[in-house]
Amino acid sequence: SICPTHLLHRCRGSDGIDSSWSPRRPSNENQAPGWPFPLPPAAAGYPFPPAPYGGSYQPSQGSDDDWDDDWDDSSTVADEPGALGSSYPDYEAAGGGASATVSRNLNRFSTFVKSGGEAFVLGEASGFVKDGDKLCVVLGPRGPEWQENPYPFQCSIEDPTKQTKFKGMKSYIAYKLVPSHTGQQVHRRYKHFDWLYGRLAEKFPVISVPHLPEKQATGRFEEDFISKRRKGLAWWMDHMCSHPVLAQCDAFQHFLTCPSTDEKAWKQGKRKAEKDEMVGANFFLTISVPTGPGASLDLQEVESQVDGFKAFTKKMDESALQLNHTANEFARKQVTGFKKEYQKVGHSFKCLSQAFELDQQAFSAGLNQAIAFTAEAYDAIGDLFADQPRQDLDPVMDLLALYQGHLANFPDIIHVQKGALTKVKESKRHVEEGKMELQKAEGIQERCNIISFATLAEINHFHKIRVRDFKSQMQHFLQQQILFFQKVTQKLEEALHKYDSV
Amino acid sequence: SICPTHLLHRCRGSDGIDSSWSPRRPSNENQAPGWPFPLPPAAAGYPFPPAPYGGSYQPSQGSDDDWDDDWDDSSTVADEPGALGSSYPDYEAAGGGASATVSRNLNRFSTFVKSGGEAFVLGEASGFVKDGDKLCVVLGPRGPEWQENPYPFQCSIEDPTKQTKFKGMKSYIAYKLVPSHTGQQVHRRYKHFDWLYGRLAEKFPVISVPHLPEKQATGRFEEDFISKRRKGLAWWMDHMCSHPVLAQCDAFQHFLTCPSTDEKAWKQGKRKAEKDEMVGANFFLTISVPTGPGASLDLQEVESQVDGFKAFTKKMDESALQLNHTANEFARKQVTGFKKEYQKVGHSFKCLSQAFELDQQAFSAGLNQAIAFTAEAYDAIGDLFADQPRQDLDPVMDLLALYQGHLANFPDIIHVQKGALTKVKESKRHVEEGKMELQKAEGIQERCNIISFATLAEINHFHKIRVRDFKSQMQHFLQQQILFFQKVTQKLEEALHKYDSV
Repeated sequence: SICPTHLLHRCRGSDGIDSSWSPRRPSNENQAPGWPFPLPPAAAGYPFPPAPYGGSYQPSQGSDDDWDDDWDDSSTVADEPGALGSSYPDYEAAGGGASATVSRNLNRFSTFVKSGGEAFVLGEASGFVKDGDKLCVVLGPRGPEWQENPYPFQCSIEDPTKQTKFKGMKSYIAYKLVPSHTGQQVHRRYKHFDWLYGRLAEKFPVISVPHLPEKQATGRFEEDFISKRRKGLAWWMDHMCSHPVLAQCDAFQHFLTCPSTDEKAWKQGKRKAEKDEMVGANFFLTISVPTGPGASLDLQEVESQVDGFKAFTKKMDESALQLNHTANEFARKQVTGFKKEYQKVGHSFKCLSQAFELDQQAFSAGLNQAIAFTAEAYDAIGDLFADQPRQDLDPVMDLLALYQGHLANFPDIIHVQKGALTKVKESKRHVEEGKMELQKAEGIQERCNIISFATLAEINHFHKIRVRDFKSQMQHFLQQQILFFQKVTQKLEEALHKYDSV
Repeated sequence: SICPTHLLHRCRGSDGIDSSWSPRRPSNENQAPGWPFPLPPAAAGYPFPPAPYGGSYQPSQGSDDDWDDDWDDSSTVADEPGALGSSYPDYEAAGGGASATVSRNLNRFSTFVKSGGEAFVLGEASGFVKDGDKLCVVLGPRGPEWQENPYPFQCSIEDPTKQTKFKGMKSYIAYKLVPSHTGQQVHRRYKHFDWLYGRLAEKFPVISVPHLPEKQATGRFEEDFISKRRKGLAWWMDHMCSHPVLAQCDAFQHFLTCPSTDEKAWKQGKRKAEKDEMVGANFFLTISVPTGPGASLDLQEVESQVDGFKAFTKKMDESALQLNHTANEFARKQVTGFKKEYQKVGHSFKCLSQAFELDQQAFSAGLNQAIAFTAEAYDAIGDLFADQPRQDLDPVMDLLALYQGHLANFPDIIHVQKGALTKVKESKRHVEEGKMELQKAEGIQERCNIISFATLAEINHFHKIRVRDFKSQMQHFLQQQILFFQKVTQKLEEALHKYDSV
């Protein structure tokens, strides 16, 4: 029996806020002084790379050469172990997840500071919010929700094609994107996704930006990898389009709609996104929350809800880790052991039919042929077992990887919210002690209220897409399993039929 | 890949007759002088004990105390490794078959002598053949055949019951036999089967008497063992009743029909069988073969047919050994590994549903229940895998064990026939050299002809029941496999259905 809980470190952050759940999320840059652990290879064992966070992730800011510079090619992903190939690596050998837990950012306090949460709560953020930038949290039947996107759309990602430039000196894979709201296809490379991801992760402190599928050290042009990445990007795109805030944001719309051939327009949009002032602390300025009597959130109620969600994410993360491990092992067993066992049965039947063929009498020929056919059926069933994980377990693991990315995002989101709550409590104490004016404390509470609304809206959104995704994925898994066992049954029925005429 | 051929020793008997196929058949008694190998435990690794042969197997001859003396209890079976329990022992650990091949009777010549074959061929057998003892070989479409039993019957073996005697001091299992030609039930113990087997193996030198299911050291009263033995005895009984000669022989009829309560009648019949003079050499006197023009067999033709059959049995023995090994391994994997893998998937789904239950919102309750149900379905599928070998692989292995017994009999049968052929060749040479009268040589050839007819009839019978048995067993196996995969599919469909209302 697998119990992944022992893989989770329990520790307390230096800011004194309980951070007993350690997300397996390395933070490679802006390390707090005194960082005690050697950094493991980025995202060891993690299929989706963790989100660098809080404005520190700016690989190409200020540079316009992204059409030429091959990030993905030149990235240091060669250090990454546990890259998912088409096979099912041994879980332990792939780095598990244990080592990754060490790499968490122990200096939690910096998250609250770096996210801009502290500055915003203290009223230090300022900026002009255009109408188009405004984001609304509304009260739905289940509490605060992001206002729905009035123009919902989807976007397909198809036809990954190998393209070259510099007269064939450089190769890359381009994906065809067709957003449903424009119907105009554009071509994007992984590095464009990666750039976009960096923008969004910087801009939205309390929104869980879905992680991109991993980078890969080797085999970047192999069919299995390309197919796997396309599926990962499609999952990512689905979560992007499903999110009311992310779906409507300028950088994403630029990414979806800018013609691939218009290099100038691309650079303009890119520069605009990189110069966006409504990021971090200022992002909170763009959020409108319900007002009027009864619209203010009860601090204790919020704390209790957020704590409940924290417990939920911890448990979900553990079970996702375990299910991923089980699915990977199960896939590996089917590709190796199960296949072998059925094919050994097939081989033994084949040997028996060959022995029986030494009896040259006519009356035994039918039996010999039927047994030989049965041998082939078992051989084919072995192949069916080996092919099956691609149909059912791989999609489950893809989904889990995406959700593991979200679950790695939430500790920081929760942390920003908790940092804001702590500021409110502090300010109340300061008022009691006469160290702060009431008006300032009220301002802090009001801004904390905004962060709480946004956090709860994000939590609600998470639950909504979680139920939707897991329902459809479980159905897909079971449908594929049923199809598989029906195919096996059919093979056996064909074999049985051969004995009718013996 | 398994290649059991290396397990077979290739060697040449001391009589100069090629005995390159070494049957895995120990001969525990009447060892030829100079027997070079230590005897392995009887029938090591062999599910059905080999047939002691040629009048040497007389454990209770001259003793009438078999109603009291518990052979089965007091036998030395404790030395037997590889007893088939209800589980699937590791094949190698169970003795495999490699060691058993060492135990063959290297002194082949003694078989020809001890069987009475030599004495008969040389005209030294004599006895009065009653009409009732006469056995006919007829020419069928496929060559010599035993004349069919004009009164075919079957016999069920049911209701193994633990009985006691000596006021509970001794316990034994009695089986209820109901032969179809009398409809009268009788009760017999294993030791009665064993006694009968000894009589038949002694009496019929060129007939393959089916081996009894193994004795067992421990757990003789355990339900699994009793059930397994009953099935083994039922297979044995089926082969007895299917054989025209064995089915009609007096000792077998006595065994089938003598009332269990009539101790006196039992002892009379038993004594009569043990005093039967038409055994060994004299048995051949009872065989009538086709006469008239064209009825005499061509020596070279016979030799070629017997050699062909020898090659067949060798190959069938190898493939039966391999299939048995594969089936045993496959069963073991399903009971252990396959079960574990499916139940691990079930457990992981269960953990996921438990994590999801932490979100107490009504709209996710349906999904949680559906995932919990899916978890149970996979747990049940694991159990189905573990239960399945009993339905399909066990019967295949039972059949293989019975046939491995037959295949262990044939080398001796072939040897008797080859010994007779050698005598014919010798006699021809002796006539040419003026050392033997022509008339005597003609007598030798005539009697060899009888042995050849009987051998070919036995070979034909073997092929007939082989095709019958393997056809029906392969059908049964596939039917059970189909039922199994249908049950699995049904479980999954039930689980899928739970998501409809989510």
